[in-house]
Amino acid sequence: MSITTKEKRFGIIERYREFLPVTENTPKLTLHEGDTPLIHAASLSAELGINLYVKYEGLNPTGSFKDRGMVMAVAKAVEEGSKTIMCASTGNTSAAAAAYAARAGLRCIVLIPSGNISLGKLAQAIIYGAEVIAIDGNFDEALDIVRDITAKEPITLVNSVNPYRIEGQKTSAFEICDVLEQAPDILAIPVGNAGNITAYWKGFKEYKQAGKMDRLPQMYGFQADGSAPLVYGKPVPNPETVATAIRIGNPASKEGALGALQESNGLIDAVTDEEILAAYQKLASTEGVFCEPASAASIAGVMKQRKQGKIADNATVVCVLTGNGLKDPNIALSTIDGQPETVPATREAVLSLIF
Amino acid sequence: MSITTKEKRFGIIERYREFLPVTENTPKLTLHEGDTPLIHAASLSAELGINLYVKYEGLNPTGSFKDRGMVMAVAKAVEEGSKTIMCASTGNTSAAAAAYAARAGLRCIVLIPSGNISLGKLAQAIIYGAEVIAIDGNFDEALDIVRDITAKEPITLVNSVNPYRIEGQKTSAFEICDVLEQAPDILAIPVGNAGNITAYWKGFKEYKQAGKMDRLPQMYGFQADGSAPLVYGKPVPNPETVATAIRIGNPASKEGALGALQESNGLIDAVTDEEILAAYQKLASTEGVFCEPASAASIAGVMKQRKQGKIADNATVVCVLTGNGLKDPNIALSTIDGQPETVPATREAVLSLIF
Repeated sequence: MSITTKEKRFGIIERYREFLPVTENTPKLTLHEGDTPLIHAASLSAELGINLYVKYEGLNPTGSFKDRGMVMAVAKAVEEGSKTIMCASTGNTSAAAAAYAARAGLRCIVLIPSGNISLGKLAQAIIYGAEVIAIDGNFDEALDIVRDITAKEPITLVNSVNPYRIEGQKTSAFEICDVLEQAPDILAIPVGNAGNITAYWKGFKEYKQAGKMDRLPQMYGFQADGSAPLVYGKPVPNPETVATAIRIGNPASKEGALGALQESNGLIDAVTDEEILAAYQKLASTEGVFCEPASAASIAGVMKQRKQGKIADNATVVCVLTGNGLKDPNIALSTIDGQPETVPATREAVLSLIF
Repeated sequence: MSITTKEKRFGIIERYREFLPVTENTPKLTLHEGDTPLIHAASLSAELGINLYVKYEGLNPTGSFKDRGMVMAVAKAVEEGSKTIMCASTGNTSAAAAAYAARAGLRCIVLIPSGNISLGKLAQAIIYGAEVIAIDGNFDEALDIVRDITAKEPITLVNSVNPYRIEGQKTSAFEICDVLEQAPDILAIPVGNAGNITAYWKGFKEYKQAGKMDRLPQMYGFQADGSAPLVYGKPVPNPETVATAIRIGNPASKEGALGALQESNGLIDAVTDEEILAAYQKLASTEGVFCEPASAASIAGVMKQRKQGKIADNATVVCVLTGNGLKDPNIALSTIDGQPETVPATREAVLSLIF
């Protein structure tokens, strides 16, 4: 046999176990999450005069960055003898919880706010076999019920207050540094519940501490203008934005986010839904990368900050794209008016539209 | 700097250039396609008494195996000076063509049969910026028009009759052998237009020829029963199946498929829509892997053949999962009756559903 064995990748627990709370009893659970592409955005780099990459987390197994944290949370639940996990979610969390529970043979119960979840995300929770319960209330109420039940019953809470979630999520920072062989100048990231910015910053600090690189990035967080509690300095009772994955008015990891911004000499800013959707379309049509609207907040934010002179010429900037555009196809379809025009099945009819 | 550089992956053209028709003038086009997970299906392996892996091609950049062939076809179009590409498609091909055209700065024109394309796939073509033209006709008519126009105009045809498509697609066979450090005993694959089974077989033969391994797999192809021209030995005028990505009545690569079956001592068989949907659900709910219905034909076929004694105990079997389940969320939703039940936002109401 002369195959040159390529480096085999079996997910984040095996790849980064020295940085994770893993014991010899932690199961080697994986759906091959992580190791997502760091794609150079050549057209946008040229247009903006910077060196721009996107970290395409939409290519995780269930289509979002949540898989990194969920594989850790579910592996530890198994290690601790749990048979059931539970979460409140409007989408990506429930998809990840349902998939890893299926793989680990656990029961998974998901509480969703009635009528407030994207088509793709609901489809995922159902097909992975989760028990989906819709409540006549909002996300905050769903989370309250989940916290109450899991505090009293033998059920493991896997919302982001579960500390293993952040541990898993920090591995994306490791991957960025592994590929660039250094930290970027700026890490730009959408901010909703603020767990992800907290996790990236923790990852960068730990990797520097371990001697893997000699500097840290500045952390630039971006919220949707209708859902920007950290930008405006107070909770938003009824957050509204097309970027549903970051429609959160009172972030659970607020302190972590503020710490990352301060320690890294970073910044937080708001972008409008119009700026988000423009960036979403531009990224797909110029770079060929299709992300969730919430993900595009990082691109929109970088475009805005660069125009305002807050990003230096030729700076290396990594924008985190948190989820796959296929999660919410209706948003993409809404960017055009109605369906494509239908013409007769003739060469002439088609040619008349081309030339 | 003490970062240990991991093997960096920049897509199939760079990784496997010695096996591809690449020149020094071929652009290094990539969206980091390929290197998709080969996931061990532990539960199904135990249940079936075999050693089963799934090659999850749904984690390619646009969510299907088509990216492998399309990156080659578009790179060669650029190399040859083309400014416009065109295809007929009911879905995955148009998404891949649109994404790589966007990245390469080419114009992309897609002909679709009116009203016969999944939500996710249409959303992709539109957001990546393709010009989508719906014709009042079926896929075969769309392809006829595309072939006619591209034969006379300076537009590159990127349907699977473009030979670079097969070249790119064969790289998935390389990856399977790289991970297993050998060919599997059986490669099971859905068969629609038959280009993919042709490409895998070509890949396995070339890798063996290059001394990368010392044996070849048996090729097991599976068609949907309502669209099984190769199983029943004649074209199907009006193919019908829930597995839309393989709803093709007269496969373009019929000869390649028949050659692979004969040379590998393989087999081809049909599976019903019921068997496909059962496999689709079972894979998601036991392994945590969500694929397109068409992809599940490979799982359904292996389950059927194993029951019939056509697969040996403990055989190493790789099932190709051609596309991501998020491409068609409505199929997943249709596996349950209606929406999840909505209950009052109280602990008691939720608990009554759990225990």
